[in-house]
Amino acid sequence: MTNDLPRRVLAPLEAALPDLEALYKDLHQHPELAFAEKRTAAEAARRLTGDGFEVHTGIGGTGVVGVLRNGEGPTVLLRADMDALPIEEQTGLPYASTARGVDDGNDVPVMRACGHDMHVTWLSGAARLLAADRGAWSGTLLVVFQPAEEGKSGAKAMVDDGLFDRVGRPDVAFGQHVSAAPAGWVFTRPGVIMAASETLRITLHGRGGHGSRPESTVDPVVLAASVVQKLQTVVSREIAATESAVLTVGSLHAGTAPNVIADNAVLEISTRAFDDEVMKRVHAAIERIVNAEAVAAGAPKPPTIELLGAYSVTDNDEAATAALTEVFREHFGAEATLPAPQVTGSEDFGEFGRAAGVPSVFWLVGGYDRDEVLAALNEGRFERDVPSNHSPRFAPILHPTLRAGVESLVVAALSRFDPPR
Amino acid sequence: MTNDLPRRVLAPLEAALPDLEALYKDLHQHPELAFAEKRTAAEAARRLTGDGFEVHTGIGGTGVVGVLRNGEGPTVLLRADMDALPIEEQTGLPYASTARGVDDGNDVPVMRACGHDMHVTWLSGAARLLAADRGAWSGTLLVVFQPAEEGKSGAKAMVDDGLFDRVGRPDVAFGQHVSAAPAGWVFTRPGVIMAASETLRITLHGRGGHGSRPESTVDPVVLAASVVQKLQTVVSREIAATESAVLTVGSLHAGTAPNVIADNAVLEISTRAFDDEVMKRVHAAIERIVNAEAVAAGAPKPPTIELLGAYSVTDNDEAATAALTEVFREHFGAEATLPAPQVTGSEDFGEFGRAAGVPSVFWLVGGYDRDEVLAALNEGRFERDVPSNHSPRFAPILHPTLRAGVESLVVAALSRFDPPR
Amino acid sequence: MTNDLPRRVLAPLEAALPDLEALYKDLHQHPELAFAEKRTAAEAARRLTGDGFEVHTGIGGTGVVGVLRNGEGPTVLLRADMDALPIEEQTGLPYASTARGVDDGNDVPVMRACGHDMHVTWLSGAARLLAADRGAWSGTLLVVFQPAEEGKSGAKAMVDDGLFDRVGRPDVAFGQHVSAAPAGWVFTRPGVIMAASETLRITLHGRGGHGSRPESTVDPVVLAASVVQKLQTVVSREIAATESAVLTVGSLHAGTAPNVIADNAVLEISTRAFDDEVMKRVHAAIERIVNAEAVAAGAPKPPTIELLGAYSVTDNDEAATAALTEVFREHFGAEATLPAPQVTGSEDFGEFGRAAGVPSVFWLVGGYDRDEVLAALNEGRFERDVPSNHSPRFAPILHPTLRAGVESLVVAALSRFDPPR
Amino acid sequence: MTNDLPRRVLAPLEAALPDLEALYKDLHQHPELAFAEKRTAAEAARRLTGDGFEVHTGIGGTGVVGVLRNGEGPTVLLRADMDALPIEEQTGLPYASTARGVDDGNDVPVMRACGHDMHVTWLSGAARLLAADRGAWSGTLLVVFQPAEEGKSGAKAMVDDGLFDRVGRPDVAFGQHVSAAPAGWVFTRPGVIMAASETLRITLHGRGGHGSRPESTVDPVVLAASVVQKLQTVVSREIAATESAVLTVGSLHAGTAPNVIADNAVLEISTRAFDDEVMKRVHAAIERIVNAEAVAAGAPKPPTIELLGAYSVTDNDEAATAALTEVFREHFGAEATLPAPQVTGSEDFGEFGRAAGVPSVFWLVGGYDRDEVLAALNEGRFERDVPSNHSPRFAPILHPTLRAGVESLVVAALSRFDPPR
Repeated sequence: MTNDLPRRVLAPLEAALPDLEALYKDLHQHPELAFAEKRTAAEAARRLTGDGFEVHTGIGGTGVVGVLRNGEGPTVLLRADMDALPIEEQTGLPYASTARGVDDGNDVPVMRACGHDMHVTWLSGAARLLAADRGAWSGTLLVVFQPAEEGKSGAKAMVDDGLFDRVGRPDVAFGQHVSAAPAGWVFTRPGVIMAASETLRITLHGRGGHGSRPESTVDPVVLAASVVQKLQTVVSREIAATESAVLTVGSLHAGTAPNVIADNAVLEISTRAFDDEVMKRVHAAIERIVNAEAVAAGAPKPPTIELLGAYSVTDNDEAATAALTEVFREHFGAEATLPAPQVTGSEDFGEFGRAAGVPSVFWLVGGYDRDEVLAALNEGRFERDVPSNHSPRFAPILHPTLRAGVESLVVAALSRFDPPR
Repeated sequence: MTNDLPRRVLAPLEAALPDLEALYKDLHQHPELAFAEKRTAAEAARRLTGDGFEVHTGIGGTGVVGVLRNGEGPTVLLRADMDALPIEEQTGLPYASTARGVDDGNDVPVMRACGHDMHVTWLSGAARLLAADRGAWSGTLLVVFQPAEEGKSGAKAMVDDGLFDRVGRPDVAFGQHVSAAPAGWVFTRPGVIMAASETLRITLHGRGGHGSRPESTVDPVVLAASVVQKLQTVVSREIAATESAVLTVGSLHAGTAPNVIADNAVLEISTRAFDDEVMKRVHAAIERIVNAEAVAAGAPKPPTIELLGAYSVTDNDEAATAALTEVFREHFGAEATLPAPQVTGSEDFGEFGRAAGVPSVFWLVGGYDRDEVLAALNEGRFERDVPSNHSPRFAPILHPTLRAGVESLVVAALSRFDPPR
Repeated sequence: MTNDLPRRVLAPLEAALPDLEALYKDLHQHPELAFAEKRTAAEAARRLTGDGFEVHTGIGGTGVVGVLRNGEGPTVLLRADMDALPIEEQTGLPYASTARGVDDGNDVPVMRACGHDMHVTWLSGAARLLAADRGAWSGTLLVVFQPAEEGKSGAKAMVDDGLFDRVGRPDVAFGQHVSAAPAGWVFTRPGVIMAASETLRITLHGRGGHGSRPESTVDPVVLAASVVQKLQTVVSREIAATESAVLTVGSLHAGTAPNVIADNAVLEISTRAFDDEVMKRVHAAIERIVNAEAVAAGAPKPPTIELLGAYSVTDNDEAATAALTEVFREHFGAEATLPAPQVTGSEDFGEFGRAAGVPSVFWLVGGYDRDEVLAALNEGRFERDVPSNHSPRFAPILHPTLRAGVESLVVAALSRFDPPR
Repeated sequence: MTNDLPRRVLAPLEAALPDLEALYKDLHQHPELAFAEKRTAAEAARRLTGDGFEVHTGIGGTGVVGVLRNGEGPTVLLRADMDALPIEEQTGLPYASTARGVDDGNDVPVMRACGHDMHVTWLSGAARLLAADRGAWSGTLLVVFQPAEEGKSGAKAMVDDGLFDRVGRPDVAFGQHVSAAPAGWVFTRPGVIMAASETLRITLHGRGGHGSRPESTVDPVVLAASVVQKLQTVVSREIAATESAVLTVGSLHAGTAPNVIADNAVLEISTRAFDDEVMKRVHAAIERIVNAEAVAAGAPKPPTIELLGAYSVTDNDEAATAALTEVFREHFGAEATLPAPQVTGSEDFGEFGRAAGVPSVFWLVGGYDRDEVLAALNEGRFERDVPSNHSPRFAPILHPTLRAGVESLVVAALSRFDPPR
């Protein structure tokens, strides 16, 4: 089964790398928060237009879709996410971000700490190569640049905004993520590859007053501390050793001055599980605990609990994943195509396949120096020395990362299209 | 001992009230944070200049001093503080503040929630009356508008900036505070009237990462929660029932997103005690706890502990207080001149007397409707219904509050000046 | 006002000291828990009988009263308490206790760690001296040996058991306590000298199971930990700096094996305050917190809260205390008659005066080497080096402690009796 | 492969059930704690002797081994554990235990809450059947009644006491456990079936004193509460979602009276993991936390940490388990031979195979009514209604539980022996 088409389509990639590197650095230096990806979307749309795609913008807010109808055959959806995070970059890179954005009304630093700049670059590169060699395949290519993956349900926003009505329904959906693993390697897994998650905002209502007179107040800082500690027991006592869940209070904010007791405290919580039933128990436990802790503290009213977002598990179609893994083995070699672990991070990529009722596959692409990663693992200093996604020091190397992620998208798409007619 | 001079000096007060009321409302609507009291200082200076004072500005940042040399005799220092707090006003008053300011680099709402607008108005009124009737007294009047009383050591800043070198040393220092008590009443106390305090900022260093992978991080939110809870034991277990201390974590900030574990958490703490030795024990306990909790959490480095400010007790001179109390009884009547309780709030007014080596007296002036206060006390709803200093609902009534505070300053000053010659 | 009668009554004291010392050591070596003071009561009764008292036993359980009707005149009640504590002695004294007793069904070590052995010895000595010189006074002497002072309401038990119906009503009640202060000194205080207190037992109901499967249980140890921490906030946040309260969880017991999650946890709590209203707030806060924490933990049912005992403040009659202080000054000298501090310990001695509707006075008698106490105070090592009441190292010196406490009772009683007729 | 021998050996089982039922009830009613299984061991030895075994007693304390040399062939070790738990039985069964025992010097209730009475009964029954039909097999049978499985390392005690030197080395070791699953079903699993565990006793040293004067003490109850809460973070924050660990503080004891602050608090902790490296991290985290919390509390000295026991994972030999599973399928049917889940409980059964350097297999045998278990699972009330091992309500049904566990041992043994010669 020698198929020369991938090699042919990918032939111009070497020459395209300087452009992709420039695109990546520009995106990295200009990160944009969820649903504010205007500059990113504009650049993606500009490139798609130039490459001959039919371009749809503003889907689900800032989403962009490029459609390339290239004869009969299957419709393949390739997706990249565009948003950045409210994190202050500490990579020290020459192209590090100093950008700021507005998050829940606050002025915050912004960084592409999850590698979505890499995703956008990969997909832009793959789209250009596939568009440039339409003789190599037959079918319809849907290129999706999604906003607001970071807990803000951008995929659902695009679907709800009529994505499939506007551009048609795919036969399969593909997505990928850069990760703290050796560059040049890809990682696949049938079944659940990424966890379900929920994002909650909880406002604990106290009663403010002078810092010297706590007896006339209900101190929301002390209440919040109690809630955070009690929430640890959800995982430590309510989840079986044979199950899995993560509950992180990512942010906690209360008060504006040392000598003033504030009126309330705000917690933002992110939870994960590899199973829906566990997720429900975690959610119920959080509600039980925050409500009761408020009573214990004598709070004037129950906490306000807002569900900011909820992602289901990312569940890779078994057959499609097996087939794709075979394709990757052939292209990258068996030594560079490895089984992915279950990842506790969450994704809303699965939404596209779920909403369309078609198989979807999501895989990981390494982005760090191979020798350094392997040495760090061997020496037990991986956690400390290899900054993971969402770290302020997250910094994929550009080569061969850029190349590998373009290749994976191209070979994945070609494996599903019909051969040229 | 019939002394008609106070009555004579105060005679124009009735007619001056509309102007003072306008000044108060203007100050209330335009609050300014510590060391940013530019508008307030400018207005105070403008009035002093108009009243014939020699005016010194920019002492200790934004401090203003008016000097009126009126013949031989003692020098009396009257002081008002000018700064506001980072609190969002909730009084619903027509002249409520909607102002914002910058606090530690953050954009925050600002409110004169501690009544310093009343203090500035009182002192402006008293200065004008004393200046208008120089025939009633002999001596030198020092009118001090101090910046940054709220934990930022504005009094010390003025002293360190050469206050007494510039304007001379007083023979006595007087200061007063509006409080949630019946308007028209004054409250005095020999000895310690207000607590010592410290203000600390503690940065707990964790190690950030993705919210789904806590095992690769040291979670500063969980560490902060543990610290806040453990700090409760300082008062509950380390202070005797026969002693007194307050430890308030007024603000706690960590993290910017629900699914990102932050690198650190910042606590701002205010402590109080009526005794220096207790204060030292509280400080030592805080250091012990935050350092050990960081070790317990596996923190990568010890917490950063910054002492932002430290106020000693406000210790009223026994003899001067006794004499002044007698003067107040004569002026306001014994039924409106009451013993003040020990107040857990802190003040840096004492710094003026301490630095000058002269007696000082600080007293309280009621600012709320008498019938309402007494009813609330009787019905056990005082704490709930009478908003205290630093509450976002703190709202003194204007009458007779304005009048009483001007009168108290004038009679206090006159009681120390020599009679006219 | 030279009154030679005290000196005359006390004359045989010197010769009686060896007997009292032997009594003290015997009592110390044979401590008995509340309501189990059989041996102690028998010895007290034996001595009273020998001294010619009319003896009543078994009042309020193990209480003993001796009555000596000696002509017309006031009736004076002198009281000592008899019970020991479930503490393992660590004094290393030759006469240290190795006794054990049964406390709530458990076999526990027992120690007279609060000095009640000294109280019994003092009162036995004073009773003998007063009985031996009936010519020195006129009136009726009531000598009360009370059981169960340590939180078990022995005074109330005696009153409820008809104490005053059986032996008549006194005109005044006196009691005293040995304390970690210089031996030979006495300490008096008008008004509240000792705190009010409550003793509570709280059973937190969880749901047991295998230690490896917490998800099928409600872990009472974790719930108890949460309750204990939250209870710290009662004092740290709900009591004003100008008030006073102590909340101690003295015992906490849960579980019988490391790998079994227990069905419940039992906390025993002792609270103190110098004010009834504060006491009520503390009680309400405890109920609020334990109930809500049980809900937060998902407990199968609310905690069981038992009030084991409640003592009011020990409130010394102002006039009687002033008179007695004068008597002590005359006898011990002004330098050895000092003002007592407010003590956070509690006492049910006040019950006798309250129930009889007569004045009562309670005072403290030092029991430690004067030079050592003063040196420890000066060198800031008092807390560490001078074991206080309830410490396993509490060990009063015998001389002059024995003598001083007998003298104080005798002069107090004589000061109230009529002179001999 | 029709093998009639098992059926033949098991033929007398039906008639033997009344005797086994009586034995089970007697053992249940007379539970004995670890290393105190004298009565149990005596009964086991008595039966083995009667059945013709060479009997060794007192191995590793109270351990009993029966040896039956029956010609050439492999040596098969069958093991049952004998000890009970310090739990108060709440089953309400007519044969419920009211026994008490001494645990760490305390008088405690005792219950066979982990089903070891069933294990002893099963093994006694199987030994008798195999001994009664020696014509059915050839080899050597080792019947091991082990003391102290519940965290006290009884298996190691037997091995260290020269078990294999005395009775020879087996070729394979088999063990089984009754569980809260349908009676008549067996459950097997290759690889790790039960977790590693550690048992720790931690004494937190405080400084005792009077309950009203916490400032002169270091309160061990508050310290213990803080430790328990902080320990929750080991699982909630330091173990990855893709790993597993359990940390249970099974017992916590401090103090003897509500108004006395104790000198120390004692925690007993049990931990579990399915991986050795995780176990080490958990252990290190516990040490880090308890030491630092003691510093945070100002403890006079570091905690005392005792390792009471440590069990490795129970790691079933892959090949031996596969073969045995096949044998069970044949005997019980495929519908009654199911894959076992990984169980978070721990076992020291693995010690026998490890020490002997031979394969071992451990499996589970259901002990509850099948319909009730399945209904409870379907209706989501399994956790609540089906009392698991170590519950005070743990109560296997006798039939067909007794029969199934005897059968499994017999067929397992026969599957390894040589056929009769």
